[in-house]
Amino acid sequence: MFTAEGIHWTPANGVKTGMPCVGAVTPAQSFTQTETGIFDVIVLGSGYAGLIAARDLATQGRRVLLLEARDRIGGRTWNGVLNGFNYEMGGTWIHWHMPHIYREVSLYGLQNDFIVTQTPGGKEDHCNLITGEKRRIISHEVEEQMFSKVWSLFCDVDGSALRETIPYPFDSMRNSSAMAKWDKLSCKDRLQQINDQLTSEEVGLLEAIILQMGGGPLEQLGFLDAMRWWALGGWTPTGLNDIGLRTRLGSGQSTLARRIFDHAKSTGRLSYSFSTPVSSITDKGGVVEVTCRRAESWRARSVVCTIPLNVLPDISFSPPLSPLKSEAIHIGQANRGNKIHADVAGPDLVSYTSFASPGEGMICAISDNLTPSNDTHVVLFGPTPDMPNGIPLGEDVETVRKAVAHMIPEGQEIKRLVFHGWYADEFSKGTWCFFKPDYAAKYLAELQKPHGSIFFASADWSDGWRGWVDGAVQQGTQAALAVVEALNGSPAPRL
Amino acid sequence: MFTAEGIHWTPANGVKTGMPCVGAVTPAQSFTQTETGIFDVIVLGSGYAGLIAARDLATQGRRVLLLEARDRIGGRTWNGVLNGFNYEMGGTWIHWHMPHIYREVSLYGLQNDFIVTQTPGGKEDHCNLITGEKRRIISHEVEEQMFSKVWSLFCDVDGSALRETIPYPFDSMRNSSAMAKWDKLSCKDRLQQINDQLTSEEVGLLEAIILQMGGGPLEQLGFLDAMRWWALGGWTPTGLNDIGLRTRLGSGQSTLARRIFDHAKSTGRLSYSFSTPVSSITDKGGVVEVTCRRAESWRARSVVCTIPLNVLPDISFSPPLSPLKSEAIHIGQANRGNKIHADVAGPDLVSYTSFASPGEGMICAISDNLTPSNDTHVVLFGPTPDMPNGIPLGEDVETVRKAVAHMIPEGQEIKRLVFHGWYADEFSKGTWCFFKPDYAAKYLAELQKPHGSIFFASADWSDGWRGWVDGAVQQGTQAALAVVEALNGSPAPRL
Repeated sequence: MFTAEGIHWTPANGVKTGMPCVGAVTPAQSFTQTETGIFDVIVLGSGYAGLIAARDLATQGRRVLLLEARDRIGGRTWNGVLNGFNYEMGGTWIHWHMPHIYREVSLYGLQNDFIVTQTPGGKEDHCNLITGEKRRIISHEVEEQMFSKVWSLFCDVDGSALRETIPYPFDSMRNSSAMAKWDKLSCKDRLQQINDQLTSEEVGLLEAIILQMGGGPLEQLGFLDAMRWWALGGWTPTGLNDIGLRTRLGSGQSTLARRIFDHAKSTGRLSYSFSTPVSSITDKGGVVEVTCRRAESWRARSVVCTIPLNVLPDISFSPPLSPLKSEAIHIGQANRGNKIHADVAGPDLVSYTSFASPGEGMICAISDNLTPSNDTHVVLFGPTPDMPNGIPLGEDVETVRKAVAHMIPEGQEIKRLVFHGWYADEFSKGTWCFFKPDYAAKYLAELQKPHGSIFFASADWSDGWRGWVDGAVQQGTQAALAVVEALNGSPAPRL
Repeated sequence: MFTAEGIHWTPANGVKTGMPCVGAVTPAQSFTQTETGIFDVIVLGSGYAGLIAARDLATQGRRVLLLEARDRIGGRTWNGVLNGFNYEMGGTWIHWHMPHIYREVSLYGLQNDFIVTQTPGGKEDHCNLITGEKRRIISHEVEEQMFSKVWSLFCDVDGSALRETIPYPFDSMRNSSAMAKWDKLSCKDRLQQINDQLTSEEVGLLEAIILQMGGGPLEQLGFLDAMRWWALGGWTPTGLNDIGLRTRLGSGQSTLARRIFDHAKSTGRLSYSFSTPVSSITDKGGVVEVTCRRAESWRARSVVCTIPLNVLPDISFSPPLSPLKSEAIHIGQANRGNKIHADVAGPDLVSYTSFASPGEGMICAISDNLTPSNDTHVVLFGPTPDMPNGIPLGEDVETVRKAVAHMIPEGQEIKRLVFHGWYADEFSKGTWCFFKPDYAAKYLAELQKPHGSIFFASADWSDGWRGWVDGAVQQGTQAALAVVEALNGSPAPRL
């Protein structure tokens, strides 16, 4: 199983594209019979939202057609395999405090498959804090203290660590007037409010943290999403790290995605077509027609659309979407940051971290685990490529190599680089969702609404872990139930 | 909708049994056709484990018969309604860090239904710490400090707050040899190990805390389950309180249970019979026969048995269960503690808590919210009734009233008492599961194993939130998938 996606480099073999991936699906098409030629549901997109919706619908007796633009399942969450090691190209860290995805982990018996990033005990067991030209080695204890100080100060606007403002992180807009107020602020606005309480080094750290979370630029990142992430982290300074950056599946995300896909397939009611980008969706009243770029079309009684927010403007809807939804889609979400894997020779860096501001392409490095070759696998994040300190991710690997080298101690040998250019990827146009300022209060509820028989499900407009795998599963779960209820309430169309 | 369960008292009306409950099912029987007279699955018990299994199977096209000994759904988790207030008679507090139940909350759109116990701002805004004859009023800050000290000291056996010993709380036996070692200890043993580091007042508080968790007596409570609860609470002193004792559904647990039941019913594939205690289960090879006490019997290709651990000895299995499983069932689980609701006149107590050691029937009081009559709803816990400081819960309400009065400030008027006698309840024989010492390492895996075509699902032998609603949902979810896989693998029997 091999996907055309993913770019990887080694000194010996140079740049290669495409990777072995258990989420790649061959043959790309499989159709089961429908009596009428009309599916119950067409699910657009096979990321977690689409996979969960397709599975829940197929297992509940519905005839489902899954259309996917790529050659693999998983959307923005998948892992390639090189040299026996799983490289998570997108969504990575999950945890039992992410309820929707954890229920899936548990359902498929993967609760014993967790491993921990941030392996302790390496030789370079510290944090390299790079602000401008200056480099300072700090212990992980000091790193945690500094992180806690700046992240708390940034988020805690109510003196209760946000327990009062966001008491229910999965019902985040409950205090609607307070939330509407904070929604106006960008992360840059908020940083300016607390700037005088921070050293310039602390400002640098905080900027790197926020750019890691949302890609940036800072003025395009809504402060509300930072607040929500804090609350989701249990209202504690280190909670978000513990839940969102620490535990991952040893077998890789594509293994879990594959279980869901295979479960859906096992019903005999799942048809699918991969490498099939969709161009238009037409609700004809009682039946919805979906047309793909190569002009084939299929019909169904309803559609679950999991196409990412930033890609929705490329899809033609008839009748057109509501003006508010169109506006929301046109504005889109902010996050188009970079993620890189670097294998560094030997085990010395296995406990290493680094933050850089402004950085030279990358702003954060977190060591993960040793590879089977006993090299250190380091995960790096960079800001959105069109920022001054951003870099494009493509076949110009030398730029990438230099950006990585800036983040690690001098003289370390980079043995492998692995990445996917989400920014330039026409089927994602960015990475995990981070809302822009002045957005959630206006558009979130609208984005969640169906459009006739078209139901929208994506981590991009979930509440709770919006932008994370958990939000995708939540949305897929809820969409499947909504479709079942709608189908039960309306008789099959007669054409 | 009215259940025969629940006892309540007011000065004006005296003692009454039975309560309005949205989980009561009338008529008690409903049968849909099966072509062969053989169901795909018989689910025994309609607590959360049974409801989830029945729903997952019915929505996946299986013919399901749900048999329930009681007149209502919910098992050990249900709420009665009196005077417009929801009294949670068993399982109460749930949270988004309980992944399996929270996924259900989210599925049915109840994420905006959470309310908080422990309302701040009342007049008696403090903790009443009662040790023997002595009463000391302490602030909630001091209460939290004392709680944190004793609970940390009790649980943290490895100096890492158990992060090393139990890194994955839902895969709690991963460090099997360490866990087997700690499994030998009772809570009493552990208390003796740290006794010299505690004041006698602190010992009293700790004993009350542990008895609230497991009912007692202390020598019957496995230390392993205390360790696990600590880890589930995020390895922090207050985490368990935040997750397990703070947020609940405003609409009541029976409302959520009802949604699951109604969802299963809406498939047209759910048959059920309430007030139908089961007496024997006979696996005839390809078909399983379940016989109820009034001698009716039904047949199915498989059975999901959610009968509580302490009740399983009353069921006759043929062929007999494995010797190890029989032994586990014979030993049973420890928790047979009491839970009481008291409405106290006026709002003064709304921020009040109390711990008592040894107490006079009750050992812990936690104020919840105001009732519609502006009285304070207080939840109290007591140790197992056959302990010296335990009391039977029945129609002798005067004993209960005195036990409650001991826990609240003198002169407060008790306007209503509400409770269910779980100890004497033949269909539960106790409350939420707390394992005995020397039990988990020996029996947990065995209890989870199927017996031929009989699958066992209960919070009582879940990993993770064992004994909690979350564990029940986890088990029901996993059992349904196991049954689907088994049914797919084996053709329908021909008789």
